[in-house]
Amino acid sequence: MIHVHGYAAHDAQSPLVPFTFERRDVGPHDVQIEILFSGICHSDLHQARNDWRNSLYPMVPGHEIIGRVVKVGAHVTKLKAGDFAGVGCMVDSCRQCSACHEGLEQYCEEGPTLTYNGRERGSEQLTFGGYSDQIVVEEHFTVKVPATLDLKAVAPLLCAGITTYSPLRHWKVGPGQKVGVIGLGGLGHMGIKFAKALGAHVVMITTSPGKGKDATRLGADEVLISRDADAMAAHKASFDFLLNTIPVPHDLNPYVNLLKRDKTMALVGVLTELEPPLSGGNLIMGRKSVAGSSIGGMAETQEMIDFCAEHNIVSDVEIVPIQSVNEAYERLLKNDVKYRFVIDMASLRQEAA
Amino acid sequence: MIHVHGYAAHDAQSPLVPFTFERRDVGPHDVQIEILFSGICHSDLHQARNDWRNSLYPMVPGHEIIGRVVKVGAHVTKLKAGDFAGVGCMVDSCRQCSACHEGLEQYCEEGPTLTYNGRERGSEQLTFGGYSDQIVVEEHFTVKVPATLDLKAVAPLLCAGITTYSPLRHWKVGPGQKVGVIGLGGLGHMGIKFAKALGAHVVMITTSPGKGKDATRLGADEVLISRDADAMAAHKASFDFLLNTIPVPHDLNPYVNLLKRDKTMALVGVLTELEPPLSGGNLIMGRKSVAGSSIGGMAETQEMIDFCAEHNIVSDVEIVPIQSVNEAYERLLKNDVKYRFVIDMASLRQEAA
Repeated sequence: MIHVHGYAAHDAQSPLVPFTFERRDVGPHDVQIEILFSGICHSDLHQARNDWRNSLYPMVPGHEIIGRVVKVGAHVTKLKAGDFAGVGCMVDSCRQCSACHEGLEQYCEEGPTLTYNGRERGSEQLTFGGYSDQIVVEEHFTVKVPATLDLKAVAPLLCAGITTYSPLRHWKVGPGQKVGVIGLGGLGHMGIKFAKALGAHVVMITTSPGKGKDATRLGADEVLISRDADAMAAHKASFDFLLNTIPVPHDLNPYVNLLKRDKTMALVGVLTELEPPLSGGNLIMGRKSVAGSSIGGMAETQEMIDFCAEHNIVSDVEIVPIQSVNEAYERLLKNDVKYRFVIDMASLRQEAA
Repeated sequence: MIHVHGYAAHDAQSPLVPFTFERRDVGPHDVQIEILFSGICHSDLHQARNDWRNSLYPMVPGHEIIGRVVKVGAHVTKLKAGDFAGVGCMVDSCRQCSACHEGLEQYCEEGPTLTYNGRERGSEQLTFGGYSDQIVVEEHFTVKVPATLDLKAVAPLLCAGITTYSPLRHWKVGPGQKVGVIGLGGLGHMGIKFAKALGAHVVMITTSPGKGKDATRLGADEVLISRDADAMAAHKASFDFLLNTIPVPHDLNPYVNLLKRDKTMALVGVLTELEPPLSGGNLIMGRKSVAGSSIGGMAETQEMIDFCAEHNIVSDVEIVPIQSVNEAYERLLKNDVKYRFVIDMASLRQEAA
C-alpha cells in the first residue's frame, strides 16, 4: 500500500483537516501520480458540507488533478515516469455498457466511479480525491498533459474545462455562429475561451454589469446584461447555442427567448429544480430544446487538453496553499475568485515533511 | 364578397350562436372551399372562452377544415373545382423569413396568420375559421385530400394529425426504436397511429389503466401506467423518443427518466408552465433534451396527408351537428370523446336554408 497525506472533511460541519490514508499499490494498468496541483471545484464545497445529502466521510475532495507520473504498471503505454498527467471527475466505469463502448464513460449506465465521494468498483473502499500528495488511477482514466502548458492553470480543465468543452463540441459550435455563455464563474470563463477558440461570435450573458470588462478580456465579443430588458429584447431569437453555467435555480424562460428556431440551450451547472418553471409554449413556438450535459468522456477529455495546448488555453487561477482551503471555500461562497482556486500541493509536502 | 353562414362566440361567457359574415372574393391565388367537416380542437374551446387572454370577437373557431373546392383563382395549379381540400391552423405567413423559405411557415418570424382569432396580413380584418359553410384561402395554405380517405375523419389531421406527425418525423422516429406517446386524447391517439405506421415499437403512457385496451386497438404495442412506480422503473432509460401530448401543467421529471441517453422528449400539448419544475440534474445525467414542436409546415402537412392515404390512417371521430357545438365543448372538458368531435357542416346548410 502507498501511504498518502491529504486533507479531509470528517463531517458536514467541521473544516477540512490533515488526514493520512493508504492507496493501492500500482497494478499492471495503473499510473501513480505525484499530485502537483488540485483545483477547487464548487462541488467540492457542496460535497464536503453534505449539501446534496449523499456525502461519504472521511472525504478527501478534489477532481481537478495535475501531477507528475512517478510509476506505471507493466501494461501502461500512454504514460511513463516523468510525464505530466491529469485526472478528472472519474476514476473508473463499467467498461461494458453502450455509453462506455462509445467513449462516454461519464454516462456509464451503472454510473462512473467518482474520483472522490465514491466507492471503488466491487468494493466498499471509499475513493479519495486530489487534495492529497499521491493518487493511483487506471491509465484509461488519466490524460497526458503537454509540458508546454502552465500546469497549475491546467488543473481546472479536468472539470470546468471539459464540462464546457464537451457541450460546445456536441452541439457543433463553430464559425458563423452566435453563441451565448450564461454566467461568468469557473465554468463560464472556460466557456468563453473555448467558444471563441472554436470560432464563434461569443456573447457573455450575465446579471452583473461589472463583469463586462473581464468578459471582454477573456474573449467575449459582446456582453449582454440579462437584467436589461431592452438589451434582451434586442437579442431575441438570435442565438445558435446557449451554454448555461448558472449553478443555482433560475428562470430559464428569458434565455429560451434568446434562441433561434431549432436551437438548444445546454445546462451544465444547475442540478436542482429550475424555478420558476419553464413554459412549454416557449419551447413549442420555435421547436427549441433545453438539454443538459455532464463533463466529458476520457477520449474527449484528452482531445480537450490537446485543443488547449494547440490554442494555448488554460484557466485563470489563484494559487492557494492547502492550509488555506477552508478560507478558499468561504471566498468561493462569495464568488470571490477569478476564476478558480488551485491548491499548490507543495504546501502539503512541506507540512508533511 | 361572399356571404357566409357560421357559428361564432361573441364574448368569453356566452355560447356559440349562428352568425353571418362576409369573406373576400376569390383572388388569382385563392381557393374557395365549401366546408364539409370541421374538427373541434381543444384550443377552440380555450379561444372561445378567452382562457389565453388573447381572444378577438366575434370569433368563428375551427382550424381542422375539410371541404370541396368550388372555385379557384386564375393562377391556382394544385387544386381545381370538385377536388377535396384541407385547411389547418394557418392561412398566411410572411413568405420572406428563413422559416418561410424553409417551408416552416408555422415558425414564421413575424408569426403566421391564424385561421381564426387572427387578423388578415396588413389589415385589421379578423380571420374566421371552419365553423362556417365556406372559406377562401390562398392555395399555398391548402392541402389536397385524396377522395379515397374518409373525409369526415380526415378533418382532425389538419391540427391533431400534423402536430404529432411533424415531431415524429423531425426526431426521425422509425423501425428499431421504442417510442412513448404520453397522454391519450385527440393528439395522443394520432401519435400512436403515426408512430406505429413509422415502424416504431409504441408504448402508450397514461395515468388511466382504463385507456389501455383502446390504446392497443389504436396500435400501441405496450401500455405503461405512469402512476405505477414499479412499471415506470422497469422502463427507465429505455425510450428513444417521447411525444408528450398532455395539455396541462404536469411533472416532466418521471418522463425524462424514461429517456435513453442523448434522447428527446418533445412537448406538443402544454403551452403553460411545467409545474412542478424540471430538474436540471435529470437532463445533465444523460445529456437529455426537452423540446417543443408546433404543428407543421404546409409541405409537411401535405406529406402527412399523403402518408395517411398510403397507410389508411384517419382520426377516430364522433360526428356532431353544428347545433350541438356548445354541448360538445362541455363533453370535451370532461374528455368525453373518442377522440375528436367533428362537425358535419350539412347541419349548418340545413339550418341556413
